[in-house]
Amino acid sequence: MNTNIRLTLPVVCFVWQIAMIILFGVFIRYDEESDAHWVETKAHDNITSDIENDFYFRYPSFQDVHVMIFVGFGFLMTFLKRYSFGAVGFNFLIASFGLQWALLMQGWFHSLDPQTGKIFIGIESLINADFCVAGCLIAYGAVLGKVSPVQLLVMTLFGVTLFAVEEYIILNLLHARDAGGSMVIHTFGGYYGLSISRVLYRPNLHQSKRMQGSVYHSDTFAMIGTLFLWMFWPSFNSAITDHGDGQHRAVINTYLGLASTVLTTVAISSLSQKTGKLDMVHIQNSTLAGGVALGTAAEFMISPYGALIVGFFCGIISTMGYIFISPFLEKTLKIQDTCGIHNLHAMPGVIGGIVGAITAAAASESVYGKQGLINTFDFTGDFKDRTVLTQGGYQAAGMCVSIVFGVVGGAIVGSILKLPIWGDPADQNCFDDEVYWEVREPATHHLLFTIQPLGCAIVFNLVSRDELQTSFEIYIEFL
Amino acid sequence: MNTNIRLTLPVVCFVWQIAMIILFGVFIRYDEESDAHWVETKAHDNITSDIENDFYFRYPSFQDVHVMIFVGFGFLMTFLKRYSFGAVGFNFLIASFGLQWALLMQGWFHSLDPQTGKIFIGIESLINADFCVAGCLIAYGAVLGKVSPVQLLVMTLFGVTLFAVEEYIILNLLHARDAGGSMVIHTFGGYYGLSISRVLYRPNLHQSKRMQGSVYHSDTFAMIGTLFLWMFWPSFNSAITDHGDGQHRAVINTYLGLASTVLTTVAISSLSQKTGKLDMVHIQNSTLAGGVALGTAAEFMISPYGALIVGFFCGIISTMGYIFISPFLEKTLKIQDTCGIHNLHAMPGVIGGIVGAITAAAASESVYGKQGLINTFDFTGDFKDRTVLTQGGYQAAGMCVSIVFGVVGGAIVGSILKLPIWGDPADQNCFDDEVYWEVREPATHHLLFTIQPLGCAIVFNLVSRDELQTSFEIYIEFL
Amino acid sequence: MNTNIRLTLPVVCFVWQIAMIILFGVFIRYDEESDAHWVETKAHDNITSDIENDFYFRYPSFQDVHVMIFVGFGFLMTFLKRYSFGAVGFNFLIASFGLQWALLMQGWFHSLDPQTGKIFIGIESLINADFCVAGCLIAYGAVLGKVSPVQLLVMTLFGVTLFAVEEYIILNLLHARDAGGSMVIHTFGGYYGLSISRVLYRPNLHQSKRMQGSVYHSDTFAMIGTLFLWMFWPSFNSAITDHGDGQHRAVINTYLGLASTVLTTVAISSLSQKTGKLDMVHIQNSTLAGGVALGTAAEFMISPYGALIVGFFCGIISTMGYIFISPFLEKTLKIQDTCGIHNLHAMPGVIGGIVGAITAAAASESVYGKQGLINTFDFTGDFKDRTVLTQGGYQAAGMCVSIVFGVVGGAIVGSILKLPIWGDPADQNCFDDEVYWEVREPATHHLLFTIQPLGCAIVFNLVSRDELQTSFEIYIEFL
Repeated sequence: MNTNIRLTLPVVCFVWQIAMIILFGVFIRYDEESDAHWVETKAHDNITSDIENDFYFRYPSFQDVHVMIFVGFGFLMTFLKRYSFGAVGFNFLIASFGLQWALLMQGWFHSLDPQTGKIFIGIESLINADFCVAGCLIAYGAVLGKVSPVQLLVMTLFGVTLFAVEEYIILNLLHARDAGGSMVIHTFGGYYGLSISRVLYRPNLHQSKRMQGSVYHSDTFAMIGTLFLWMFWPSFNSAITDHGDGQHRAVINTYLGLASTVLTTVAISSLSQKTGKLDMVHIQNSTLAGGVALGTAAEFMISPYGALIVGFFCGIISTMGYIFISPFLEKTLKIQDTCGIHNLHAMPGVIGGIVGAITAAAASESVYGKQGLINTFDFTGDFKDRTVLTQGGYQAAGMCVSIVFGVVGGAIVGSILKLPIWGDPADQNCFDDEVYWEVREPATHHLLFTIQPLGCAIVFNLVSRDELQTSFEIYIEFL
Repeated sequence: MNTNIRLTLPVVCFVWQIAMIILFGVFIRYDEESDAHWVETKAHDNITSDIENDFYFRYPSFQDVHVMIFVGFGFLMTFLKRYSFGAVGFNFLIASFGLQWALLMQGWFHSLDPQTGKIFIGIESLINADFCVAGCLIAYGAVLGKVSPVQLLVMTLFGVTLFAVEEYIILNLLHARDAGGSMVIHTFGGYYGLSISRVLYRPNLHQSKRMQGSVYHSDTFAMIGTLFLWMFWPSFNSAITDHGDGQHRAVINTYLGLASTVLTTVAISSLSQKTGKLDMVHIQNSTLAGGVALGTAAEFMISPYGALIVGFFCGIISTMGYIFISPFLEKTLKIQDTCGIHNLHAMPGVIGGIVGAITAAAASESVYGKQGLINTFDFTGDFKDRTVLTQGGYQAAGMCVSIVFGVVGGAIVGSILKLPIWGDPADQNCFDDEVYWEVREPATHHLLFTIQPLGCAIVFNLVSRDELQTSFEIYIEFL
Repeated sequence: MNTNIRLTLPVVCFVWQIAMIILFGVFIRYDEESDAHWVETKAHDNITSDIENDFYFRYPSFQDVHVMIFVGFGFLMTFLKRYSFGAVGFNFLIASFGLQWALLMQGWFHSLDPQTGKIFIGIESLINADFCVAGCLIAYGAVLGKVSPVQLLVMTLFGVTLFAVEEYIILNLLHARDAGGSMVIHTFGGYYGLSISRVLYRPNLHQSKRMQGSVYHSDTFAMIGTLFLWMFWPSFNSAITDHGDGQHRAVINTYLGLASTVLTTVAISSLSQKTGKLDMVHIQNSTLAGGVALGTAAEFMISPYGALIVGFFCGIISTMGYIFISPFLEKTLKIQDTCGIHNLHAMPGVIGGIVGAITAAAASESVYGKQGLINTFDFTGDFKDRTVLTQGGYQAAGMCVSIVFGVVGGAIVGSILKLPIWGDPADQNCFDDEVYWEVREPATHHLLFTIQPLGCAIVFNLVSRDELQTSFEIYIEFL
């Protein structure tokens, strides 16, 4: 297969970046609070303190989310022994493109000013753009190591587009709440990636099996990603919720849910091995499932123990997903899911949507307070007469929308990516950085020796990267 | 020894997590500022801006502390060549359990509402829970590589319990100030760990000596932990101090003290080697001693140069601890301290307690201002007639309490952990991830070859992981 | 050469640190907002909320900048296969010294109180000290692996001194704007380092060529540095800009500019190789050029698309710098630039200065608003009659000042560092941690084997660290 991307990759990067510049020139402007005129509008609005600029409410959370996108997702995927450059580098590339395109797409759908025809952006737009990108990075996890960077860029272009549309339907038309994106981000992103991976099914992927594992240090690198995702997830779920108690509560719930997930993940991981040993794959991934599943309900009054319960079950389900469901998906449904995003994002995302629907339907004035209920579910304007039961129904509908967009969108985009023009690797070269990166260190460094003294001879067992195993004996003279 | 934890680890994780859920259900509720009713209580309290929610004062510091707990402590302990999974993974596990238990224990002791019988939690509770966990993670450093995850969970259960009691005595009954926890966290945690390690003394630990060292990349991973601890320590020492000048001053003092520590650590480390080479162990650990020692006094008016002086001496003392005191402790007192927490936490913690007592006793209205003095030392309510001298005495008393709790508590918990039911590793399997983790990469990868040309022969010196050294000669034909 | 630094390094560390303590004792005090008297001055100034303490406006950005200085710069330089300890460790050392000296130097030049003769420091001083240190760390990049830690400390002492003077001239006398330091930090730091490297030219550096490359994991470590710099650059460029819209806008512009840079860096990197493979050197470094180039103009109303355009060209220029200009500099101008700071800091810094001058000269009341223009360019006091055109001229003059200070200052400091008393490594020992660090793992671990079965013999190709390549044949009996 021809993996030369010297023409396609630069062309796509240049043309798309130039398109971004032109579209930004036409559409994107600073919003009121980031424009130098703010000193005047502020005076006009009777704002006396600069601290009331939304920047100071949102910026710390934004930076945490930004770390999750680039270090969190990037390093989580470095677990493969020889795909760290691709994991962290391509993640960097597609996120950098995706956030620009997301500002445009989300702007057109959510905040296009009808009078001026402009999109006015501020700190909240940047957070939303990062969120949108997260959906595509989740999808990347399913096809990690099996696609070219050009394919990833195409996947991101369509992924962001689909995301903006489903987000518009779910949040604006259905008026569902989904601050941390259980449905909008994780369910959509998960099924989008799985669906693409299904279309791109490689029956002979086993030819790359020697590369599809971790080594000691690559597993340690991956833990950097895991931990930054885990630690900053409270910021993720609270970044765009209501100021004050909304953000405060979302942080508490996510913090607790994630802690609970860690314990049940460890329990199931230990149960899955004969001697109770733990598996790094589970620790790296399933510990995060509680954060995914609280994406919708974190801002609700689900109670601290409610958050613990959600985390409890997600740790179990996600880890059991890695043990039982992933092999089933690959064998029966022909879905090759490199990072197990089905267990980390798709399933917990669906659980999060269901939890959100139930807790919304069960909300009451006694728990939220009259005004608190209105604020939390934004029962204002066109939606001021909506009941919590109706809201629960619309939440459930929102989840269905995200699944449909993921599955159908992924199938279509997968078909496009199947065209033989994108420079994807051959079956025997998957999961190998040498296809798209200048790797200075020869791969043969990774020969593994096992040596046993055997009389006066020594037996070498050589296992090269090609899994060509050779045993030989060397007669030696001891000095 | 039987290191099978397939029964005990899942049982402990499940039962304890379910207990947490039940106890949270009974006791834990959102506090005023994270409850949806805040929109009403806020109006009642004449709060006009959401920014006055304590969330915005504390959240950035909380996230920094959170990073220190999970990435800081976790990666600091990855320095061992083959215990990175255990370092970062078990740290993750026990911190996740510990923070839940800490919310309950600290809640019962510090903030149980007498009327409702509930504990109301908000962002400050999360910070305090993380602090409490820090004490247990410090103790983990002393026994790193020598205990099973079940033992660590037991150690954390009792550690958090003891912590909450000593904290209650020191902060509430003695009314000592200890915002960054020189006494409450570091002194207690340090002696708790050392005392446990003493009880669990392994006379034949030398059988694992081959594993008890670092390799090049593991030392680099450990620097990730060091730096995140070092950088975010100003947040640690300021996270729960008074708003405004208190937090501001704590940051400045910690920032300066830590900078000073780095220079004296480097100086002593260089002096300790014949050719002036530096030792990574010192750089990874002793550079942090200044932050520990400013845990009590960082919020006081100790002056910028005062902070530099504290850091100056701590760098010296801590590094000399690694060179002289650690070998002495192991040989004479039979305390095997894997990470040298005596040098990083226990000693600097005691210094911090003393510095706190002295600077409190020396505080004056001319330096603090009349109201500033009252605010800084919280001379209100029952304590409104306390003098600074008395305060100094209580600070010193507080330090003694933390030492006693650490030593005695550790001795008792150590005895419990000595029971032969916890699945701890044999003396020859310490510091080895393969005991509790599925390690995909064979250990024999770590054979070391040294090759010398010798006439037409080549001498191989093989040093395997078992320290079985073999020299042999191979007759070769040059091509 | 004598690389024994057992005398010089401890002496320099101790003496300089003691000098810092004395000078801090004489000069440095808490400012109004970090002093315990604030409770009174606050009341006097009618400040009702603690949140108006500048601490809450600046602290999150400060912490991000702090991460960039220690983890960002430190890990970015770990890319060399055996210089990770020196990269991250010496970075740690010189930054810790530099920030103390910077507080004094910047204090004397910018904020010495004429009445009391004191320097009053607060959170903004800490940010500025970190900024000042950044200039020296940039310069470290040019001489990485070729100098001793004592030389680095000397370089930092003079670097900080020069920085404070040029900063005073540019910001105070010329009244140029440079919030993110395109000129003051990057241009100065870049040329300072290049100039020093020129004076310290080593004609026989090729003797260390075997060490001057990366291995797989060291490249992954370097990406940690890259990403933290990239993600937190918006904080860097906004940390000391005007509150409110100024900080808000600086973040948006930097965020966008950096995203654009990533795409053009990837495009050029791919174009530079026959098969379109990417080079980690480019991804690690050139992706950051957009942030450097927006250091001056990020706070201006350059429009979102303007930021994209700046990033677009910087990615191209910086990557082409690595491909074409670096070899030229080394061969023709005899400038050995280990990290390529000319491409990452010097060139983009100059571009940033030019962009700043042009956009300042083009500023108008219609774009900024009357008051917004005055605020953004601080046209107050002595400068209240300055026009934007004049401002543009002064911006350009500022850039020239930074270049002159860098080149001339570097030449002088380089001459001092050329004295044969600093313990720098021999030409054949550059880029090797074993010179200044206790390295536990023998270097021979890095022997590379390539093995080909050849009839019944096996050919070993051994490449040792000394590039001594030996081929030999071993006759074997297959078991």
